Amino acid sequence: MSMDMNPASSFAQLKRIESSKVFQTVVIAIIILSALTIGAKTYDLPPLVEQSLSVMDNAITLFFLIEILFRFAACPLKRRFLMDGWNLFDTIVVIGSLIPLDNSEAVLLGRLLRVFRVLRLVSVVPELRFLINSLLKAIPRMGYIALLMFIIFYIYAAMGSMFFASVDEVLWGDVAIAMLTLFRVATFEDWTDVMYATMEDYPMSWLYYLTFIFLTAFVFLNMMIGAILEVMSEEQNAKQAQKAHDERDEIARQLRAVQEQLQELTKQVSEKR
Amino acid sequence: MSMDMNPASSFAQLKRIESSKVFQTVVIAIIILSALTIGAKTYDLPPLVEQSLSVMDNAITLFFLIEILFRFAACPLKRRFLMDGWNLFDTIVVIGSLIPLDNSEAVLLGRLLRVFRVLRLVSVVPELRFLINSLLKAIPRMGYIALLMFIIFYIYAAMGSMFFASVDEVLWGDVAIAMLTLFRVATFEDWTDVMYATMEDYPMSWLYYLTFIFLTAFVFLNMMIGAILEVMSEEQNAKQAQKAHDERDEIARQLRAVQEQLQELTKQVSEKR
Amino acid sequence: MSMDMNPASSFAQLKRIESSKVFQTVVIAIIILSALTIGAKTYDLPPLVEQSLSVMDNAITLFFLIEILFRFAACPLKRRFLMDGWNLFDTIVVIGSLIPLDNSEAVLLGRLLRVFRVLRLVSVVPELRFLINSLLKAIPRMGYIALLMFIIFYIYAAMGSMFFASVDEVLWGDVAIAMLTLFRVATFEDWTDVMYATMEDYPMSWLYYLTFIFLTAFVFLNMMIGAILEVMSEEQNAKQAQKAHDERDEIARQLRAVQEQLQELTKQVSEKR
Amino acid sequence: MSMDMNPASSFAQLKRIESSKVFQTVVIAIIILSALTIGAKTYDLPPLVEQSLSVMDNAITLFFLIEILFRFAACPLKRRFLMDGWNLFDTIVVIGSLIPLDNSEAVLLGRLLRVFRVLRLVSVVPELRFLINSLLKAIPRMGYIALLMFIIFYIYAAMGSMFFASVDEVLWGDVAIAMLTLFRVATFEDWTDVMYATMEDYPMSWLYYLTFIFLTAFVFLNMMIGAILEVMSEEQNAKQAQKAHDERDEIARQLRAVQEQLQELTKQVSEKR
Repeated sequence: MSMDMNPASSFAQLKRIESSKVFQTVVIAIIILSALTIGAKTYDLPPLVEQSLSVMDNAITLFFLIEILFRFAACPLKRRFLMDGWNLFDTIVVIGSLIPLDNSEAVLLGRLLRVFRVLRLVSVVPELRFLINSLLKAIPRMGYIALLMFIIFYIYAAMGSMFFASVDEVLWGDVAIAMLTLFRVATFEDWTDVMYATMEDYPMSWLYYLTFIFLTAFVFLNMMIGAILEVMSEEQNAKQAQKAHDERDEIARQLRAVQEQLQELTKQVSEKR
Repeated sequence: MSMDMNPASSFAQLKRIESSKVFQTVVIAIIILSALTIGAKTYDLPPLVEQSLSVMDNAITLFFLIEILFRFAACPLKRRFLMDGWNLFDTIVVIGSLIPLDNSEAVLLGRLLRVFRVLRLVSVVPELRFLINSLLKAIPRMGYIALLMFIIFYIYAAMGSMFFASVDEVLWGDVAIAMLTLFRVATFEDWTDVMYATMEDYPMSWLYYLTFIFLTAFVFLNMMIGAILEVMSEEQNAKQAQKAHDERDEIARQLRAVQEQLQELTKQVSEKR
Repeated sequence: MSMDMNPASSFAQLKRIESSKVFQTVVIAIIILSALTIGAKTYDLPPLVEQSLSVMDNAITLFFLIEILFRFAACPLKRRFLMDGWNLFDTIVVIGSLIPLDNSEAVLLGRLLRVFRVLRLVSVVPELRFLINSLLKAIPRMGYIALLMFIIFYIYAAMGSMFFASVDEVLWGDVAIAMLTLFRVATFEDWTDVMYATMEDYPMSWLYYLTFIFLTAFVFLNMMIGAILEVMSEEQNAKQAQKAHDERDEIARQLRAVQEQLQELTKQVSEKR
Repeated sequence: MSMDMNPASSFAQLKRIESSKVFQTVVIAIIILSALTIGAKTYDLPPLVEQSLSVMDNAITLFFLIEILFRFAACPLKRRFLMDGWNLFDTIVVIGSLIPLDNSEAVLLGRLLRVFRVLRLVSVVPELRFLINSLLKAIPRMGYIALLMFIIFYIYAAMGSMFFASVDEVLWGDVAIAMLTLFRVATFEDWTDVMYATMEDYPMSWLYYLTFIFLTAFVFLNMMIGAILEVMSEEQNAKQAQKAHDERDEIARQLRAVQEQLQELTKQVSEKR
C-alpha cells in the first residue's frame, strides 16, 4: 500500500504513458503535421505563412526532442536504447534537425534533414516497422542475385563502351555511363532509339540488346520473384508442419495409452497364471 | 390447399421471380443495352437516332426504377435492403439518373451518372460480385504497403521539388506536381528525359532516380505480389488443414474403438479372476 | 499365323507408322521448311528462287494433303476424326491452302492462309499441344476478370470521350477510339503525353488517369496472376492430398489388423471361461 | 609416422590450399582488379596510367594461368578436369586472353576476351555457381514456351511484313526486321507510333497489335511465371512429403509395437489354456 516512487514503478508508469494510444496518436499527428509543413514550403507562400511555418517547424523540432528524451527516460536499460535500430534512427533525425542553419546554402541541407522526419512515421507505426523488417529480411537472399545482375551489367557496359563509344559518346562514353544506358534499356525506356543508332554502324548489334534484355528483364526478374516466393513458402511450410505435428502428437498419445492398457492387461493375465 | 396470398408466400413468389434465370437475363440485357446507348452517344449521330436514343434512355431509366422497386418489394426485411452494399449502390445509380437535367452544362453530369449504370452489371452478375468482394478483401492488407509507398513518394517529391524546381518548374514546381512526375518515373514513362534534364545541373542526380526506381518499382511491387500470395496461401492452408483433419479424425476414431475393445477385454479377464 | 490383312491389323499398322519417330520427324521437318519458304517470300528474291519457292510450296501443300489423308486412314473411327480439335484445325489449314489463287489481290489472302501452316507445328509436337491445352484451361477462370476489365475500360472510355473529345478528337473521338487510347495508357506507352494534353483543359484529369492505372495495371494484373496461381495450387493440392491419403491408408490398415487381433484374443479369453 | 610425399597426400595438400579461404579471397580480389582495369580502359587516361594498366593486365593474365595450372595439379583425376563445365569455362577464358594481339583491329577482340574474365567471378564464388545452376535447370521447362513464343512471333512477323512492308520498309521490310519490330511492340516501346502508322492504311490493324500483345505480353509472361512456380512447388512438395513421411513412420512403428504386444499376450492366453 506504499506509494513511494521506486525506480521500477516509475519506469512502468513512463512505459505505460509511452505505449498509450493517446501518446502514440499525438506523436503520429505531429509527424504528419511536420510532413505537411515540409510539403507546404515547396509552394510560393505569402511571408506571413512562411514565418508561421518557421515557428511551427521549431515547435515540431522541440516536440520531437522532448519525445525522444521521454522515450529515453522510459527505457529501463539506457545502454540498450541506441542498440535498437529504430531508436538510433529517431535520435539521428531529431539531432540532425537541431543543428542551427543560417540563411546560406546550408538551408537546403537543413530542409533535406527535416524531410527525413517523415520517415519517423515508419518507426512509430508498428505495422510499417513490421513491413520494413520483412523487407530487410529479404535483402540477403537477393544479395547474390544483385551481384550477378551487376556482373552482367558490367560486362555488357564494358562491351558497349568498347564498341559504341564512337557512335554516341553521351550514351556509351565510359563504363559508368554505359551502365546507366543499360539500366535505361532494362526498363524498356526508348531502348529502340539506342538500338537503332548503334545498328547503323553495327548491323548485328540487335543481338547485344536482345541478349541483354532476355538476360536481365526476363530471367532475373523471375529469379527475384522466386527468391521472394521462397521466403514466403518457407514461413508457410513451418506453420503447416507445426500444425501437422500438433495433430499427430494426439495420435501418438492415444497410441501410448493403448500400449499402457495392453501392458496392464498382460500383467493381469500373467498374474492369473 | 388454400390459395389466399399471405405475405410470406407472396415474398417467396416475388423472390422466385427475382432469382429466376429469365428475370436476371432480361436485367442483364437491359444493362448491356444501356451501355450501348451510352457508347452510341459518343459518336456523331443523325438527329433521328439521337432522339430515339433519348427515348430509349428514358425507357431504360424507367425499367431500372421498376426493377429496384420490385427487388425492394421482394425483400422480406425492408430495413436491411439498403444495408447491403450492392442494393445501396444500385439505388443510388437509379435515383441519380432520375434527376431531370435541362440542356445546360448539367447534361454532362447527367450523362456521367448514366455511365455508372454499366457498373450495375457487376452487382447483377454473381461471379463479378465475388471478384469484387475478393478484391475488396485484399485492400486492408495492401493498405500499409500503400502508406509506405506514399511516404517514399512524399519524401522523394519533397527532395525533388527542393532541388529540381529551378531546373524544370513544370515537372518539379511543388510537392504535388513532383509526386505526379515521380509516378511517371515509376511507370518508366520517358523517365530518362526527366533524369537527363536534371543531370545537367546535378550530375549525381541519377542516384536519386535509381534509388527511387529500385525502392518503388522493384521492391514494393514484389511486396504487393507477396501480400496477394499471402491471402491465397492462407485460404489454401485452411482448406488443406481441414482435409488433413478430417482424415486424421478417422484414425482417432479407430484408435478409440481399439481402446474400448481393450477395456472390454480387460473387464472380461479381471471378471474371470 | 495367317497373314491376311484384316481391317484391325491394317489400322494398327497405319497407326504404328503414324506414331513412329521417323514419320513425325519428317512431318516436323516439312512444317519447318514450309515456315522458311513463307519467311523467304518476304525478301526481294531473284525470279529463279521465286519460281523454285513456288514449286516447293505446291509440293508442301501436296505433302500436307497426303499426310492428313494418311492420318484419316489411320483413324479407326472416321466420324470422330474431326471431333478432335487438332485434327479439325489441321484439316482446315490444309484445305485452306488448296484453294487455287490467281495473281490478283487474293494472292495476299492465299499467302496469309499459308502462314497459318506454321501453327501446325503446335498440333504435331505433343509438348506444344499440352502447353496450349493448359493455356485454354486457364481461359474460363480469366473470363470474368476480362469482363470486369472490359467494364472498367468501357466506363472510363465513355467518360473520356465525353470530356476529352474536345481536347483531342484523334485520341478521344468516340468510345472505341477512347478504349484504344486507354489500352495505350494501361501499357504506360507515352501516357503522360495524353495526360498533360488533357490537364491543360481539365487540371484535375490526372485523377482520371491515376485511378484508371491503379484499377487496371496494378490491381487486375495481380488478380490475373492470382487466377493462374489458383489453377496451379489446385493441381498441387490434389497431388499432395493423394499422397497423404495413400500413406494414411497404410496406418488405417495396420489399425484394422490390431482390431482383428484383439477380436481373436477376446474370443479366446471368452472361450476359456 | 612416415613423412614421404606420396601422391595422395600431395593432392590432399594442394586441395587444402586450393579450398582455403585465403587462396579463394586472393583469386576473387585479382578477378575484381581485372574487372576494374577493364572498366578503367573505357576512360580517357594519361599514357603513364595506360602503360601501367597494360603491365597489370599481363600480370593478371599470368596469375590466372598459374592459378588454373595449380587447380589442374590439385585435381586427382586429370581427365575429369575439363569435364566440369566451370573448369572448361575458366580454361577457355584464360587461354583466350593468352593469345598475343598486335595493335591492329584484333585489339578490340583481345579486349573483348578480357571482359569475359569478369565472368570468372561466377565460377569462383559458390553462391553464384548455385544461382547459375538453378537458372540453367529452369531452361528446359521454358524451352517449349520459348518455341511457342517464337512461332507466334514468326506468324505475326510474316503477316506484318506481308501487309505493312508498303507502309514502312524500315520496320516491316522482311520477316527478320518485322520480328525485331514485334519484340519492340512486346516491350511496349513506342508501340502506338508503329500502330498509328499502319492504321492510316489499314484501319483495322489495331486488332493485329492488340491480339499480339495479349498473346505475348499477358498470357505467355504468366505462363513463364507458372513454369518457374512449378519448379519451386515441386521442390517444396518433395521436402514436405519427406517430413510428413518421417513423422508417419513413427506412428507405424508404434503400431507395430502394439501388434507385437498383442501377439505376446495372445500367446500367453493360449498357453494358459
